[in-house]
Amino acid sequence: MARILTFFFLLLATLAFSQSSDQETIKEIYNQALSQGKSYEMLRELCVNIGPRLSGSPGAAAAVEWSRHKMEDLGFDSVWLQPVMVPHWVRGQQEIGRIINSKKIGTREVVITSLGGSIGTGPSGISAGVIEVKNFDELKQLGSRAQGKIIFFNRPMDPTKINTFAAYGGAVDQRGNGAVEAAKLGAVAVIVRSMGSGIEPYPHTGGLRYVTGVKLIPGVAISTKDAELLSRILKEEKDLQFYLETHCQILEDAPSFNVVGEIKGSEYKDEIIVVGGHLDSWDLAQGAHDDGAGCVQSIEALRIFRAMGYKPKRTIRAVMFMNEENGLRGGTKYAELALKNKENHIAAMESDRGGYTPRGFTMSGNDKVKSIIRSWKHLFEPYDLWDFNQEGGGADIGPLISQGVFQIGFLPDSQRYFTIHHTPEDTFDKVDKRELELGSASMAALIFLMDKYGLK
Amino acid sequence: MARILTFFFLLLATLAFSQSSDQETIKEIYNQALSQGKSYEMLRELCVNIGPRLSGSPGAAAAVEWSRHKMEDLGFDSVWLQPVMVPHWVRGQQEIGRIINSKKIGTREVVITSLGGSIGTGPSGISAGVIEVKNFDELKQLGSRAQGKIIFFNRPMDPTKINTFAAYGGAVDQRGNGAVEAAKLGAVAVIVRSMGSGIEPYPHTGGLRYVTGVKLIPGVAISTKDAELLSRILKEEKDLQFYLETHCQILEDAPSFNVVGEIKGSEYKDEIIVVGGHLDSWDLAQGAHDDGAGCVQSIEALRIFRAMGYKPKRTIRAVMFMNEENGLRGGTKYAELALKNKENHIAAMESDRGGYTPRGFTMSGNDKVKSIIRSWKHLFEPYDLWDFNQEGGGADIGPLISQGVFQIGFLPDSQRYFTIHHTPEDTFDKVDKRELELGSASMAALIFLMDKYGLK
Repeated sequence: MARILTFFFLLLATLAFSQSSDQETIKEIYNQALSQGKSYEMLRELCVNIGPRLSGSPGAAAAVEWSRHKMEDLGFDSVWLQPVMVPHWVRGQQEIGRIINSKKIGTREVVITSLGGSIGTGPSGISAGVIEVKNFDELKQLGSRAQGKIIFFNRPMDPTKINTFAAYGGAVDQRGNGAVEAAKLGAVAVIVRSMGSGIEPYPHTGGLRYVTGVKLIPGVAISTKDAELLSRILKEEKDLQFYLETHCQILEDAPSFNVVGEIKGSEYKDEIIVVGGHLDSWDLAQGAHDDGAGCVQSIEALRIFRAMGYKPKRTIRAVMFMNEENGLRGGTKYAELALKNKENHIAAMESDRGGYTPRGFTMSGNDKVKSIIRSWKHLFEPYDLWDFNQEGGGADIGPLISQGVFQIGFLPDSQRYFTIHHTPEDTFDKVDKRELELGSASMAALIFLMDKYGLK
Repeated sequence: MARILTFFFLLLATLAFSQSSDQETIKEIYNQALSQGKSYEMLRELCVNIGPRLSGSPGAAAAVEWSRHKMEDLGFDSVWLQPVMVPHWVRGQQEIGRIINSKKIGTREVVITSLGGSIGTGPSGISAGVIEVKNFDELKQLGSRAQGKIIFFNRPMDPTKINTFAAYGGAVDQRGNGAVEAAKLGAVAVIVRSMGSGIEPYPHTGGLRYVTGVKLIPGVAISTKDAELLSRILKEEKDLQFYLETHCQILEDAPSFNVVGEIKGSEYKDEIIVVGGHLDSWDLAQGAHDDGAGCVQSIEALRIFRAMGYKPKRTIRAVMFMNEENGLRGGTKYAELALKNKENHIAAMESDRGGYTPRGFTMSGNDKVKSIIRSWKHLFEPYDLWDFNQEGGGADIGPLISQGVFQIGFLPDSQRYFTIHHTPEDTFDKVDKRELELGSASMAALIFLMDKYGLK
């Protein structure tokens, strides 16, 4: 009996030690990020010195070189590029959107921006009547009345949804599929209400999709403020004319790269934990929250391990994915190479919801792994991460699902994201230093636990 | 047996109904705030149209009238003013802080601001040597060497503390008591490192305290950026001279007011639930987060009830407290009147931690009441409020403690607060509309539950 008790106490002591040691390591991770952190300065370099970096642009090329050098300078064990061909779309000169000869407000310029991937109208522009719809059902009911018209999709993001990503998900079909659906009825162009949480004077761009067999027509986003204006006028002037002129072009695919850096595992080097964000951004802004934040947080997680002298058992890899915004070619290529090289990824983590104050992590995959990660939740509560309940991963790590790789999404607070998402306002000064740093630390802490205990 | 079972099932059904009905009401509260909310526009009026409103200033008087009219216009059952005499301190013309004849950087202006309540140097200024200390122990060790010197308190807020209010609490003794402690040793003035989370080019003001019997000496805050500079130079130039010129003055106490609005209870009108923020702000900024946000959230909570047609059983009262920043006279007066009028406050809630994304509520008082409120926690989790563990209330409701009134503090995320707190940067544009609205809704939801179920 005494022996069993002794064993039991020894076990308890070991557990208590291991527990307290985890708490201490995690505290050290947060301390590193908050007092010696480099994520904020890295983000400044990426956003202010380089700036916009749409796939195929000079900015994207500069960002590739910047991240390669950065990870080399930080002394990661290896840093390399994964070549990938990416779509190359260019906006061309400033778009024109114009309400013509309204009885109420005369001729008035409104704020529009071409949707990414759209064809342009060219210099002769398009003049046509405008019909407002809220969804595809209303569109279909138009039938032949849509012929020759500009279709104006004007369903707002639902402000009562607490998770703004849910509100975005409930509205973004207009932007993604509006042009195709309208073209099927013979419309000549689409204007889509910007995917923004509020009433803003600037437009939100973002990708649209074309499908083979359906005529390509131009698509633009209009600022939510001008969407309200246009809608008000259309209520009284059904025959209102609109002039649209865009100069965007779809060029030949261009060569680009994912940038990968890693720290080799000391015990199980063939087991890989990957963490990443996307290096490309829309052309309108600095892509600070989307997704410069995710990139520098991923690099910072590895930097923190090195600064602490922590030697991971498993291989930890940071990936800057190229082309999340308009093609997902980087994420697709990464998964393709992982399969080809028979790599064993035990988990993939992505940060692509902005550099805001941490709330938790989303997960997708094996239930047992979810339970393991949820058993660590109490270690995160002192850092204000409580939400480990939501399903989800990330766009760039998504292609790894077919290889059975467990998915983790860093989950920051979502309230401010869709006021600046895909707009000229997504700039470095909108990122709070501490919020960004807490994100890096939270990601590093979860990677540490997965590395230490594995996921089996 | 069957009868007992029937009773049991009926009870369950009733509980389930009441549960679902609470969820629905709370959903309606959030929907109101997020889709019909008025808090953001109210805050714009208070911050942009009125602006700074230090106790005794024209801005404070305008804010009193503004809130009285606002609550009257919203149709609250009664709105009234509580007269209170407040300290009247004025900054006067722009302060001058100057490093003189440094071997390294020559003569250089640095960014300083008078601490609230400080005496001024007058137009002749003070020139003296500077000694840097990190805390009062280091100060005491100076002994007679402090004589005739300017004492520079330069202990930063601890960046590794996750709760920034804890970091503030760990540093603010320098600002509050530095002048008194330095004067005891014969120092002629104090320069205090701004209470800011980061390295910023602007200063943070805030109150200092004098005590009778100790000589009054001027106190200023220096921007964290210039605190770093000054500290660097002092390391090499121990005999560095500094010139300080401030024109602030302590005037006679001035008349002012708390502004109170209420909705009368339909069943227990003598039981009062009070919710408030403070109407005064420092003179440097618009006081958007500190504490315009708390004021408009309090008004908005009552507005939401009216807009929903919800008739509270108990009396719900919104109070705009005057003079939290440099005297707490409003909070003190409110408690004094509550006692004199034999009012029965069952709970007091305060919002004075900024208009940021909600995290939960702090509580202070009776354990049974804490348990009741914690039993409602699951109703808040869908809105991302998880933290009901911390002890705390608020400065303005504090004087009610001696009457046994249960204290509740609205707890938003704290990460961004101390970059703008008491600075020219605490402006309306730093407030996110959705974050502010979610705060109003969270406060209204908890008031609804307390009103419906009581706290016994």
